[in-house]
Amino acid sequence: MSEAIIYLDPDSPLNLQSQIRQKLAEAILNESFPRGRRLPSSRKLADQLKVARNTVVLAYQQLIDEGYLISRERSGLYVNEALFEGRVTHTEEDAAAAGRRSDWHRKLRGRVTLDRDFNCPPNWQQYPYPFIDGQFDQSLYPVKEWRDASRMALGVREINEWAGETGDRDDPQLIEQIRTRILPRRGIQARPEEILITVGAQQALHLVVELLADSSTSVALEEPGYPDMRRLLAQRGVPLVYQPVDERGMQVDERLDACQLYYVTPSHQTPTAVTMSMDRREALLSKAAERDALIIEDDFEFESNYLQSPHPALRSIDQDDRVIYVSCLSKVLSPGLRLGFMVAAPEVIREARKLRRLIVRHPPLNNQRTAAYFLSLGHYDSFLMHMHKTFEERWIALRRALNYYMLFYVEMAPAQGGTALWVRGPEDLDVRYVAREAAKRGLLIEPVDHYYATRNAPRNCFRMGITSIPHERIRDGVLQLRDLFHDLTQNKTETFASAKGAHLRGEVLDKAVRGTTMICTIAYGDPCTIEICPDGTLIGIAGNAGEDRDEGRWWIENNRWHRQWSRWAWGEAGVYDVRLDGDIIKLFDEEGWLIDRAVLRRNPEADSIAACDPA
Amino acid sequence: MSEAIIYLDPDSPLNLQSQIRQKLAEAILNESFPRGRRLPSSRKLADQLKVARNTVVLAYQQLIDEGYLISRERSGLYVNEALFEGRVTHTEEDAAAAGRRSDWHRKLRGRVTLDRDFNCPPNWQQYPYPFIDGQFDQSLYPVKEWRDASRMALGVREINEWAGETGDRDDPQLIEQIRTRILPRRGIQARPEEILITVGAQQALHLVVELLADSSTSVALEEPGYPDMRRLLAQRGVPLVYQPVDERGMQVDERLDACQLYYVTPSHQTPTAVTMSMDRREALLSKAAERDALIIEDDFEFESNYLQSPHPALRSIDQDDRVIYVSCLSKVLSPGLRLGFMVAAPEVIREARKLRRLIVRHPPLNNQRTAAYFLSLGHYDSFLMHMHKTFEERWIALRRALNYYMLFYVEMAPAQGGTALWVRGPEDLDVRYVAREAAKRGLLIEPVDHYYATRNAPRNCFRMGITSIPHERIRDGVLQLRDLFHDLTQNKTETFASAKGAHLRGEVLDKAVRGTTMICTIAYGDPCTIEICPDGTLIGIAGNAGEDRDEGRWWIENNRWHRQWSRWAWGEAGVYDVRLDGDIIKLFDEEGWLIDRAVLRRNPEADSIAACDPA
Repeated sequence: MSEAIIYLDPDSPLNLQSQIRQKLAEAILNESFPRGRRLPSSRKLADQLKVARNTVVLAYQQLIDEGYLISRERSGLYVNEALFEGRVTHTEEDAAAAGRRSDWHRKLRGRVTLDRDFNCPPNWQQYPYPFIDGQFDQSLYPVKEWRDASRMALGVREINEWAGETGDRDDPQLIEQIRTRILPRRGIQARPEEILITVGAQQALHLVVELLADSSTSVALEEPGYPDMRRLLAQRGVPLVYQPVDERGMQVDERLDACQLYYVTPSHQTPTAVTMSMDRREALLSKAAERDALIIEDDFEFESNYLQSPHPALRSIDQDDRVIYVSCLSKVLSPGLRLGFMVAAPEVIREARKLRRLIVRHPPLNNQRTAAYFLSLGHYDSFLMHMHKTFEERWIALRRALNYYMLFYVEMAPAQGGTALWVRGPEDLDVRYVAREAAKRGLLIEPVDHYYATRNAPRNCFRMGITSIPHERIRDGVLQLRDLFHDLTQNKTETFASAKGAHLRGEVLDKAVRGTTMICTIAYGDPCTIEICPDGTLIGIAGNAGEDRDEGRWWIENNRWHRQWSRWAWGEAGVYDVRLDGDIIKLFDEEGWLIDRAVLRRNPEADSIAACDPA
Repeated sequence: MSEAIIYLDPDSPLNLQSQIRQKLAEAILNESFPRGRRLPSSRKLADQLKVARNTVVLAYQQLIDEGYLISRERSGLYVNEALFEGRVTHTEEDAAAAGRRSDWHRKLRGRVTLDRDFNCPPNWQQYPYPFIDGQFDQSLYPVKEWRDASRMALGVREINEWAGETGDRDDPQLIEQIRTRILPRRGIQARPEEILITVGAQQALHLVVELLADSSTSVALEEPGYPDMRRLLAQRGVPLVYQPVDERGMQVDERLDACQLYYVTPSHQTPTAVTMSMDRREALLSKAAERDALIIEDDFEFESNYLQSPHPALRSIDQDDRVIYVSCLSKVLSPGLRLGFMVAAPEVIREARKLRRLIVRHPPLNNQRTAAYFLSLGHYDSFLMHMHKTFEERWIALRRALNYYMLFYVEMAPAQGGTALWVRGPEDLDVRYVAREAAKRGLLIEPVDHYYATRNAPRNCFRMGITSIPHERIRDGVLQLRDLFHDLTQNKTETFASAKGAHLRGEVLDKAVRGTTMICTIAYGDPCTIEICPDGTLIGIAGNAGEDRDEGRWWIENNRWHRQWSRWAWGEAGVYDVRLDGDIIKLFDEEGWLIDRAVLRRNPEADSIAACDPA
């Protein structure tokens, strides 16, 4: 039997008929099937491909309808010559030309410097513990709902609305959805003429920079901060002022006096995830009013506060329209879709729209319409809720695991939510090295030096994100990281064998702990007290306002102290060897690693009883 | 000395001339320079600003060319009032709000000037005769095929590929399809690293301008030309050289010597639709090589040559990689999707990709993947073929109808294809007025002044596009336009009643025409001869190479000359009253309007018989 003119791919997502049609069309266009030749009969091709004859007949018919094939009476099917009309044929010389090239280097006027950068490995999905931020978690993508919305946007009447040349207009349906569903969540009221859709939040930043900054304006940026904003401004030759970030967000002080524009990420500061406090927000707005400056509020990931209620957006408390609010839909709808928006005074939106027209006209309207349906069907709200819950679980899990396993290695910045934790390791840690070693063990963590414009980047800080790691892997991942830290700090960390203090056992141990309180600090900086009640119960209170509480049991067995919480430490029993060094109690796990260190204080009899009363 | 009307910024990246131009344009648009006032003399302003007088003279000249200023003889320069026509005036609410608002006006650094513009009415679909170009024709949209491709791109495995944060990469499947299916049609070979996907062709132009042009480069533009390219360059403060377009495309001469970059639309020049001839293409490439200049080839609508085979793209004949090729998929896939691409040396693509990342990251990847499927399924090729055929029919129909009905009103630019015709009306025509009158009769035509940067815009030219008007409406639309012209030129056009020459009837008529040849020129400039054979047949030959031929019959009935072609004039019988004025024959329709005018030559007996022999 002669060779088949095409071969089918068993893994193709196409059905057989579509696949035959596609491969034939390809062969015809490539001219790998010669123009003049007759096509095999449907029976013959069906035999060769081992498919039903009718499948081939239907594929052939489609190709005839589409003008690829023509049927000549009594002769059979041929390639339609008309297909090749209007094609330019190629000369051979081309290849040789590559040598004599224009000197591009000298001609490029607007080169972009991307300096240091963190490159998440493209195969991050193959890592068991990807503690990275902002990557897409396919398990959270609302596949079915997005498909439904797409289908609706592909109705004939719909297509007619979005497919044409609309100049610089956005889809009014999407504007309306953003106005009525998304902005009220942030406390923002806006009229349609105050909203512009952009190709991701990034484009909104670009437009604002082009409109409001040039070499004669100074712009204040957070340090550390969002690298691509820094690059956009640098690209335009704008003088920059780097403003430090503390636990309440970007500092507001006299360094802002010289700036006409402040760029801030108040919800979760990029990259520390710190939320700007209310007093800081007010101070920033006052400063702007006093200096007649403008504010760009980048709410790229709007506040997901797991510990308190979220703060209002700056724009919502701005009394004199100084804030340009930038955000996006990508957190629910995937970054690949590139849908962002900005909210600002109508004068700014009007100018931004004119500029956007020269740059991209408008973001694709089919996606605008699909997103409008997705929102109006309520999918956005329900997925946002779902994601909030999922990320909250992961974030809490990561925070707890770091606290439990790595208490003596790390401190966390005081975040209240977000999708990443900013972690400070021991002073002598070299994070670039640790990140490489971690990757070898299947763990991805993010160094932070690329977030710094100045040379002040700490070598011992890193970020751990939770957007892409399933909840059930988090604890195990932190254990792996702990083991790495153990290995890297061999002989530097206290172990049971090397630690100072008496090893307590049996009755001595019981007497030493019963009726006492352990006072310690947990890894995210909050205080924690644990009452070891005489009746064998435990009462744990953590957090600045004592907001995190748990109860448990303790007992002694085989000369070791056992404790088990109802929630904390995953509700599992911990088994510890104990040393007492003055009034410092030290707990070591079964492998001899230090797990907990606390000041031990004996309770006043009465208090102790009262405290241990089941309330 | 009085106060200067503008102040220069010593730190501006613009040169003095550009800065003066920009600041004056701003002051004019702001109306901070009052409309009615005369501008200071160049000498006075030069003194105030402490710059050379010539710098001011050149800036003034540019503002005159661009329509900001007009010169009144013996009086001086004034703000052009036409600039403010069609401006939206502010509501009172706005004004009230402005009080409490930040003073945006003063803060906007990068305002875009959209000056004159043609605004197609948004309800153009309600007009029976929308002779406009580039608007979307829903009847041509491949709804089912796009839906199929969308569905495929929404598979779970697919979503995982496009939804995530991919940094700055494009969909490799789309790159491959463009490389293997689209570019070969234009004779272009490209490797994947020579292709970048953009948010419409407009973004490709923006990236190229940002990368290759600034106030120290001069750029040559076609005049008339694409307004949004002019605006992009003006926005960046780039000095512009306006290069005239003739029937072979943009002129190549010594004015290009001063330019580092040439922007051309060779396939169908925007807006004249003229195709750049091969010799002109070669001259342009030689000039670029000689002056070490670069070329931006905007193939936004790639050549649809209905009369000959298409020319190869400039990039395909470029020997030393000087051409940056820009095109888009929007002609088949709808402008609303915003999918464009550029092909250039890898060095340029690399830089453009970095810049694109800061501006939009990348065009939405769901659309990239959907387009890749659409292409790989062969739908793109078959729809392109379908559109080519549809537009060809419409274009030929429009050309014929204009030729038949409006021969004495219009001339057409020598186009060979495209989606619009550039039409020149009588010298005293005011197209703005005619367009308004036409709209009242349900006809949309496009004035052309917004395509001109200089004040050279002819008032009597207009464009008629065929992308949105069904074939069956074209003839009727042209008839309506003819009637409008008749009405507007009452008493100026020759009619049967007013024309000179003897009215021929009966035998006299027969004797006068039998065995003669009518020699005339048709509206698109081609010669035409019609042999009126003694045996009652007609032989018509039109075109420079005589490529358009038809046969027909003629006879006399009721003292009128009848002629009927087999294809020409829709194969319908025409009935004419005839006048003979010297050797000029004039045909009038039944309403007395002049339909045809030709030189009448008596055939040599022998020739005539030979010519009329049925061949």
